[in-house]
Amino acid sequence: MPAEWSPQSQVWMLWPERPDNWRYGAKPAQGAFAKVAAAIADHTPVTVGVSADQFENACARLDPRVRVLELSANDAWARDVGPTFVVDGHGGVRGVDWQFNAWGGLAGGLYQPWNRDDQVAEKICRIEGIDRYRSDGFVLEGGAIHVDGEGTVLTTEECLLHSNRNPQLNRAQIEAQLRLYLGAEKILWLPEGIVDDETNGHIDNMACFVAPGQIALAWTDNVDDPQHACCQRAWDYLQAQRDARGRALKVHKIVLPQPLAHTAEEADGIDIARNAWPRRAGARMAASYINFLISNGALIVPAFDDPADQIAANQLADLMPNHQVIQIPCREILLGGGNIHCITQQQPVGRA
Amino acid sequence: MPAEWSPQSQVWMLWPERPDNWRYGAKPAQGAFAKVAAAIADHTPVTVGVSADQFENACARLDPRVRVLELSANDAWARDVGPTFVVDGHGGVRGVDWQFNAWGGLAGGLYQPWNRDDQVAEKICRIEGIDRYRSDGFVLEGGAIHVDGEGTVLTTEECLLHSNRNPQLNRAQIEAQLRLYLGAEKILWLPEGIVDDETNGHIDNMACFVAPGQIALAWTDNVDDPQHACCQRAWDYLQAQRDARGRALKVHKIVLPQPLAHTAEEADGIDIARNAWPRRAGARMAASYINFLISNGALIVPAFDDPADQIAANQLADLMPNHQVIQIPCREILLGGGNIHCITQQQPVGRA
Repeated sequence: MPAEWSPQSQVWMLWPERPDNWRYGAKPAQGAFAKVAAAIADHTPVTVGVSADQFENACARLDPRVRVLELSANDAWARDVGPTFVVDGHGGVRGVDWQFNAWGGLAGGLYQPWNRDDQVAEKICRIEGIDRYRSDGFVLEGGAIHVDGEGTVLTTEECLLHSNRNPQLNRAQIEAQLRLYLGAEKILWLPEGIVDDETNGHIDNMACFVAPGQIALAWTDNVDDPQHACCQRAWDYLQAQRDARGRALKVHKIVLPQPLAHTAEEADGIDIARNAWPRRAGARMAASYINFLISNGALIVPAFDDPADQIAANQLADLMPNHQVIQIPCREILLGGGNIHCITQQQPVGRA
Repeated sequence: MPAEWSPQSQVWMLWPERPDNWRYGAKPAQGAFAKVAAAIADHTPVTVGVSADQFENACARLDPRVRVLELSANDAWARDVGPTFVVDGHGGVRGVDWQFNAWGGLAGGLYQPWNRDDQVAEKICRIEGIDRYRSDGFVLEGGAIHVDGEGTVLTTEECLLHSNRNPQLNRAQIEAQLRLYLGAEKILWLPEGIVDDETNGHIDNMACFVAPGQIALAWTDNVDDPQHACCQRAWDYLQAQRDARGRALKVHKIVLPQPLAHTAEEADGIDIARNAWPRRAGARMAASYINFLISNGALIVPAFDDPADQIAANQLADLMPNHQVIQIPCREILLGGGNIHCITQQQPVGRA
């Protein structure tokens, strides 16, 4: 699996629609998704999958450079339901089609059914005419892994060892699956992700590689915030580790925004439905600048109308000086449970 | 618009599904469509559009060489709802997205709604990333026209002058639309199509070009069949015409099968629904061998388990000696109201 800073041929997204997760019939979220798509399209071709019902609306709201096609899903998390693209030694691109259970199935998953989500990776591979590896018997979401492109995988125990993903597999067996599908050698296990992350601690909200041997880690100095101890445990773990090439890791702290919660008005704009995760006023959201996308020289980074927005942008710009940092207001995406990295899936360039 | 014998990059089809048009939940029709797709795939890449509900079933039943993607429609007539592909002087391929009203709208159309059908051409063009001309204010189906690739269009008065298509346009205005969108110069107007054709006499069931200046015409010598007079009128008309290049036309008679009608068992296997065309036992079907597809050196020709099957195959082989004739049993497609040409839409090769 190539690192996210490797050349990309396109980025996949899905169109938000379900009114029991996105307030006001998803119109505010659609606006935010459209801004993200347009920002990426300045650097990389974008394809957005959309339900038949939303086709005309999506075509009208999305930047004309975006390719829109019919591709239904149960929600809009291309990172987690799209294929993880891998490249073989000859430059051939293939897709890993992870078994998907809506972040926990019937034991803490976020909605049911998830049958359309679980078809998305296959559909994308068929559209592109690329071969596909289906991981039947091994549940994973794309947001649960990050790679350095040189044999190292970054993940969290909170997610991959959770009893609602692969209870039949132990840590060594899960590592074997990651090595097999991702062509990886070394797995780095942070204890946790961001607190109150409904994905059970996806790595892509907590930490990511910014170069081989270098990791950006979400950080707060506020010792009164339970998030602080999580960050400290991740820091301590990483200081003691080496990557697949034997390098010690350089860890860079990236500021977190102030704790953010659903407002009463925001919560009230969401359909009440038995089979979808409730969004309650006052519930803390898993806001993090780490949930950005790297795409062909650009960093597409969330903004939260928070004093830390500019600090985070500066920190990331310092870490990846050859990249342009673009910030997009993302509260409407965060309200649905994720952010820019969660709603995108990059497809690497194949054979040169 | 290139002639159908020009090189093709792919053929588009749609997957039959609606149980109020295809008997027994469309399973027999799906088998026939799959055979057509496989036969084409021996010569030309095939893409089949399918609803989300039918995705897994279609993938399982179709030849693995077929590209399956989500593309919903109200039924399965790619010829009539897909784009008519045209090529500009520099080899650029574009799609004509004809306004569609389900073969007659609320005045004799075959079902309603037809909103998904009317989106198919746009969706195909977006998938392929090709430009599109939308004919708002001009209703046409792809099966209502044939071309010789050298400036001549073949159509029928019965269809194009029908009051349920473009009542606001006279013959000259309709000719102007065809010239505009197809890059054509001369329009040839057969009086009618096949009798009892629910499309109001589509040309692609009645006559087609097999080469510039040469036309294959459905024919019966049975003077007791009302079809005979229709054939004779077409013959007489064509004898008096010249094509866009000024050539007299050589017309070749292609045998028709015996009159075929829905059996009671066939009619009984179809859902009863208010907004779909009824299929009644004893109703004559518009069976014709002319409804074949030319694709990269192959003729994919309907068979009806009729003594004329072999005669028609031989006649077509004689007319297009550089093409391989492949016959597919097509009664299950005919039961739904069309045949091989109706369920396919060829995309020409563009810039060399």
